[in-house]
Amino acid sequence: MKIAMLGSGFIARFYATSLHAQRRKDSIYTVYSRDENNVKRFAEDYQLPHYTTSMEEAINHPEVEVVLIALPNHLHEAAVVACAKARKHVLCTKPLGRTAAEAKRMLELVEEAGIFGGYLEDLCYTPKFLKSVASIREGSIGRVLWTRSREAHPGPHSDWFWDKEKSGGGAIIDLACHCVEISRNFIGKEIKPIEVMCWADTQVHPIEAEDHAIGLVKFANGAIGQFEVSWTFRGGMDLRDEVVGTEGSIWTNSFLRTGFEVFSSGKGGNYVAEKAETNKGWLFPVGDEAHELGYPHMFTDMFDAIENNRQPLETFYDGYIVNAILDAAFLSAKTKRWEPIVLDVWRGDETTNEKEASISHDDEYDLVKEEVLPNGDVKLILKNKITGTVIQKIK
Amino acid sequence: MKIAMLGSGFIARFYATSLHAQRRKDSIYTVYSRDENNVKRFAEDYQLPHYTTSMEEAINHPEVEVVLIALPNHLHEAAVVACAKARKHVLCTKPLGRTAAEAKRMLELVEEAGIFGGYLEDLCYTPKFLKSVASIREGSIGRVLWTRSREAHPGPHSDWFWDKEKSGGGAIIDLACHCVEISRNFIGKEIKPIEVMCWADTQVHPIEAEDHAIGLVKFANGAIGQFEVSWTFRGGMDLRDEVVGTEGSIWTNSFLRTGFEVFSSGKGGNYVAEKAETNKGWLFPVGDEAHELGYPHMFTDMFDAIENNRQPLETFYDGYIVNAILDAAFLSAKTKRWEPIVLDVWRGDETTNEKEASISHDDEYDLVKEEVLPNGDVKLILKNKITGTVIQKIK
Amino acid sequence: MKIAMLGSGFIARFYATSLHAQRRKDSIYTVYSRDENNVKRFAEDYQLPHYTTSMEEAINHPEVEVVLIALPNHLHEAAVVACAKARKHVLCTKPLGRTAAEAKRMLELVEEAGIFGGYLEDLCYTPKFLKSVASIREGSIGRVLWTRSREAHPGPHSDWFWDKEKSGGGAIIDLACHCVEISRNFIGKEIKPIEVMCWADTQVHPIEAEDHAIGLVKFANGAIGQFEVSWTFRGGMDLRDEVVGTEGSIWTNSFLRTGFEVFSSGKGGNYVAEKAETNKGWLFPVGDEAHELGYPHMFTDMFDAIENNRQPLETFYDGYIVNAILDAAFLSAKTKRWEPIVLDVWRGDETTNEKEASISHDDEYDLVKEEVLPNGDVKLILKNKITGTVIQKIK
Amino acid sequence: MKIAMLGSGFIARFYATSLHAQRRKDSIYTVYSRDENNVKRFAEDYQLPHYTTSMEEAINHPEVEVVLIALPNHLHEAAVVACAKARKHVLCTKPLGRTAAEAKRMLELVEEAGIFGGYLEDLCYTPKFLKSVASIREGSIGRVLWTRSREAHPGPHSDWFWDKEKSGGGAIIDLACHCVEISRNFIGKEIKPIEVMCWADTQVHPIEAEDHAIGLVKFANGAIGQFEVSWTFRGGMDLRDEVVGTEGSIWTNSFLRTGFEVFSSGKGGNYVAEKAETNKGWLFPVGDEAHELGYPHMFTDMFDAIENNRQPLETFYDGYIVNAILDAAFLSAKTKRWEPIVLDVWRGDETTNEKEASISHDDEYDLVKEEVLPNGDVKLILKNKITGTVIQKIK
Repeated sequence: MKIAMLGSGFIARFYATSLHAQRRKDSIYTVYSRDENNVKRFAEDYQLPHYTTSMEEAINHPEVEVVLIALPNHLHEAAVVACAKARKHVLCTKPLGRTAAEAKRMLELVEEAGIFGGYLEDLCYTPKFLKSVASIREGSIGRVLWTRSREAHPGPHSDWFWDKEKSGGGAIIDLACHCVEISRNFIGKEIKPIEVMCWADTQVHPIEAEDHAIGLVKFANGAIGQFEVSWTFRGGMDLRDEVVGTEGSIWTNSFLRTGFEVFSSGKGGNYVAEKAETNKGWLFPVGDEAHELGYPHMFTDMFDAIENNRQPLETFYDGYIVNAILDAAFLSAKTKRWEPIVLDVWRGDETTNEKEASISHDDEYDLVKEEVLPNGDVKLILKNKITGTVIQKIK
Repeated sequence: MKIAMLGSGFIARFYATSLHAQRRKDSIYTVYSRDENNVKRFAEDYQLPHYTTSMEEAINHPEVEVVLIALPNHLHEAAVVACAKARKHVLCTKPLGRTAAEAKRMLELVEEAGIFGGYLEDLCYTPKFLKSVASIREGSIGRVLWTRSREAHPGPHSDWFWDKEKSGGGAIIDLACHCVEISRNFIGKEIKPIEVMCWADTQVHPIEAEDHAIGLVKFANGAIGQFEVSWTFRGGMDLRDEVVGTEGSIWTNSFLRTGFEVFSSGKGGNYVAEKAETNKGWLFPVGDEAHELGYPHMFTDMFDAIENNRQPLETFYDGYIVNAILDAAFLSAKTKRWEPIVLDVWRGDETTNEKEASISHDDEYDLVKEEVLPNGDVKLILKNKITGTVIQKIK
Repeated sequence: MKIAMLGSGFIARFYATSLHAQRRKDSIYTVYSRDENNVKRFAEDYQLPHYTTSMEEAINHPEVEVVLIALPNHLHEAAVVACAKARKHVLCTKPLGRTAAEAKRMLELVEEAGIFGGYLEDLCYTPKFLKSVASIREGSIGRVLWTRSREAHPGPHSDWFWDKEKSGGGAIIDLACHCVEISRNFIGKEIKPIEVMCWADTQVHPIEAEDHAIGLVKFANGAIGQFEVSWTFRGGMDLRDEVVGTEGSIWTNSFLRTGFEVFSSGKGGNYVAEKAETNKGWLFPVGDEAHELGYPHMFTDMFDAIENNRQPLETFYDGYIVNAILDAAFLSAKTKRWEPIVLDVWRGDETTNEKEASISHDDEYDLVKEEVLPNGDVKLILKNKITGTVIQKIK
Repeated sequence: MKIAMLGSGFIARFYATSLHAQRRKDSIYTVYSRDENNVKRFAEDYQLPHYTTSMEEAINHPEVEVVLIALPNHLHEAAVVACAKARKHVLCTKPLGRTAAEAKRMLELVEEAGIFGGYLEDLCYTPKFLKSVASIREGSIGRVLWTRSREAHPGPHSDWFWDKEKSGGGAIIDLACHCVEISRNFIGKEIKPIEVMCWADTQVHPIEAEDHAIGLVKFANGAIGQFEVSWTFRGGMDLRDEVVGTEGSIWTNSFLRTGFEVFSSGKGGNYVAEKAETNKGWLFPVGDEAHELGYPHMFTDMFDAIENNRQPLETFYDGYIVNAILDAAFLSAKTKRWEPIVLDVWRGDETTNEKEASISHDDEYDLVKEEVLPNGDVKLILKNKITGTVIQKIK
């Protein structure tokens, strides 16, 4: 497919590098940026046939089949408006909006225009993540009880992201959007997120927005999706997920410990590992950063979905749900209590807590726990069905 | 020194095994349990000269210099009362009390009696932990911003621990007592813990107490001590700490990933790894469980402290502070908001938030971030001191 | 480009899956297998427009631009003969030949026919490997002294590989071909491999060929390339490299520890991790197996090279060098001494040992070692230039 | 017990620190060194009641029950002579001798004198190692086929070790003594080591002795014990073992990856990790170095053995076997072929290769391999009992 890229900054370059690698058949046809120098350089670097400083021109170019929004957060909505008007399919970088209200308007725009709205949540497309979710769906770890998604690094690359007005917030809007959608996928997207408790603070930087936050999202089935996001982390980029289910656990590390370890005395003097803060001592590069972050698999799903007229794994609707959860998180950080998640649009289940019934051991007792002791004995912890008294017994 | 052991269950055996290993010079002289069979078997197993079913007899035995309380939580206070009366030094297992009120009475008892009150918080004595804390004190990771302490496993071994009345709670009283004291040590014991936000739920077991909880403890300097505790974890015992400071980070794993990995087809059929749930597939034993959990270093500090008439690293006072934090956690889990930590006794600093001043870049700008780009350029993110506008600049 | 696939077995399917993934523009046009059922099923599975039981028909089909040999080892040469005759570019799976003589004939065939001869050594294309080699070339770890490449698993999937006549050997021909080429890349392909010492044995299986071997390849600059290969490993597929240089070290793990860890009680009952021997306990899947093993990057290099009329990273010449080293390894395993590597064709340097000169400390002493002691002192180990006496000195 | 320490250098201090830690009941009574200043400082640092510059005085002191030899390698024999004469029990640091001849004389001295001869092979006492060996004895990984023991660092601390005459060699005598004994324990001490193939070179340092070596020790049952030793490693101290058996595998890492990871920007400026070459970037300390290296468990076994009049796990006899293997390794490095191990004294089994018989599948076929395919099929690789033809079959 032929793509119009809106934006020419850090994330636009990351997308372009991923799209033009590995002999893929889709390609960027034109790029838009308001800055003449930047857009020209971008077009040269990626050998594009066209570039422009007019967003409308890029979107409306007859060769363009799909538009990729890689602009600062405060410019997403206007770009979606233009795409809807031009009836061009649109893929939007994360977060979708700065608020749920903004995201909802974008969702309505694409649905009313009948265009494709893909949400570029790359971390829900990393190969480890896709395999984890598939494995969970097959029952490998039972019912998911808790997830922890952590993304932390020393802060974003671009100036606009440090400006709350343009970005919509700090570490929460930048990073928790990933974590929240990760937890939704692990727990099940059909399960309704109910309420959020969030702590946020500006611990290190001279900015207004939060540079560190921790949140708990409670789902209708009792599962908890925990996010930990920070612009204060030292040591590279910490990108880890954990999931605990009734029958197992999953741990993934997508950046700092992926089976690639280098020690350098520093004499070579060269760049070894991404985001490493140093080129000396033990360093932990990744083999192929774009792959590890999910870009190739994400674009494959998006373009396949357009061609096959199906929904991608991540849609504008998902982007809206994420924004609604983040809205509640911001509010909770202020009110210091759990805040309900307001969802004007909800297309999943309306379930309540689906805890399993107790496991009956015999007429008198329920089973609390069964354990094999080092000596081979099997020990049972049992609870009297009526009195509630707990006893232990060797089987 | 000669020790009276109160209790003959799981933890008493763990203590005894640690004390009688490695040619240590301190030894257990007598053991007490109300159960005649258990106490006799314990005395035989550890070749003790004496045993008794009378707690008073054990404590008051003239050979005994120090009493070690390894009883269920609801029996700690009565044992401390008896020790105070007998003027015998006392070491008490964790948690000190079921509530801060209980812990405070025990603290007052030992202080009024002028006896030694050691708090057996073993996880604050693991070699990794001791070295981490020393390294932090020397400035290796700067000012501590956040700690995460996680302890999770499939549930306790003994029946009484599943009974809320006897234990004082579930995973919080069992495990968060460790995590909270770990965070206090990382952040600085002189820094006052202010308030707690806690989620707790009974997700899996047919019990009244919580089997899973997550809490955030806020300290006076803005640092956050996070605890994650669970009786629902599958995969062994998950025992990990993380610390993030302004100049670095620390990650420790004390059980499941310590550089010891075994794959077994299961044909041998024997016990390979502690708490492993299985003897087949990849297993992760620890070399010396007692050492990895801190017991030897803990007892060394305790007996050295008694001999040298100094305080140990962990005292009854610390046990009381921990209980006060847990009280607030239990309350927060119910009220669903941050709850203040009530400290009738506080012997640390009365500081407020000690955030560093902004770093001035020049007359006009403060420094937000400095970053080396892959091409070697140094990029500065700067904030206008008056307008707050954020810009970027290549140095 | 349009491809004719020769073969329809395990490796052919792996190649096809990689080629037809991620919206790549090259595609398989036809497949050949002597077995009618297999070839038909393959064509259906990958939705190919054509299939045939005639190798010549596949190669000579006018749509076909490049032929991909995915046949058992003993059939490689005949396929290359047919490609040379048809003047079609050819990519051949590893090892190139069963012996250097066979490989040399294939090399001469493609060079005389003026066709492209790509050697499908996928493990020299894994993202970790490509980045490691680039980093070494930039000096990050200094002069390479030693490499260790290990590939071990419980044995190959296909019957023919257990038949020495068809495969050309056991674990050495199957796995050491990877390891040897990995070490050549790390050490520098221009450095001549001189001699080999190899141990090989049939430790477990009722076969004639070796199921376990260890070899040391000595290069002209004194560097050692160590290979460890086995069909006896239990625990999955062990795929690790290590490199030690004068200024640093590299460790990669491409399969069993890549930052993806799953514990499953086994209740789900489903397939979680590749080659895992079990679906219970701790399992270590990889995110995207083809990617981790280098297939996508390998094919990208091959087709780009054909289009740009340049050599790929791995050529038939490299395949020949590898076979020559393996010949010496097989011989050494029998003679039980170091055996010279016979290279009729050698296109690299004719260097000798390039050890650095001693580092002079002062007129009297050379520097042996400099070390910072825990107390901050710098200790020097010095050797008298004339007498050779070694002394130590605090700087 | 009361100990005379011979030597006051690096290893003597390591021993003393271990012995005087953790409230152990054995203690050093006197220390000998020929250097007055050193011996005095040592006695002060460890608060010893006595010190002397006369070796005989130390050994013969009436308070002394056991002598601990922590002297350079070329002085071991004279010290053992003196202990035998004084009929004092003796513990000797590793390696026992510089050659098997020297070691054999020491073995004969202690046996003829009827004194205890403990061989201080600490790495055969690390908790991970002890548990690994116990687990192997219980069958957890089946019959051991191969072991790899690696010890590598940037070179020893003391000048004498760089002098071949005093030390007896380079990295082989310093480090391979550990590795060889580790492999003997894993494979079974009763299994006779038969022959050795060894490569050794001086790759980096201006010395005569080897600074890097790799060796294969072949045992009577066909098992291979591989050692990799180096004074050229960069990145800290690499201390790892691997074992592969017919039913499983073991991996241990005793230093660089033990579940303790620190990132430091270096601003703190202080010492974080042992042998780390730097205090910046990612660092990997160990919790308790002496424990991780096996000292406490080693001394416990030694003194318990003396008191109980039994043999320790590691004896002078073991030290002699190790020296005999190293002799063959040195010879092989020169002759470039496998060299037989000359054992004048051998007290183990005189077995030959104990390979299992083939597993019969049915009347016609032996089983080569059984494998579960991703689709759940069970695939058998079978070998015809008479013709040797290999086929595959879905069960």
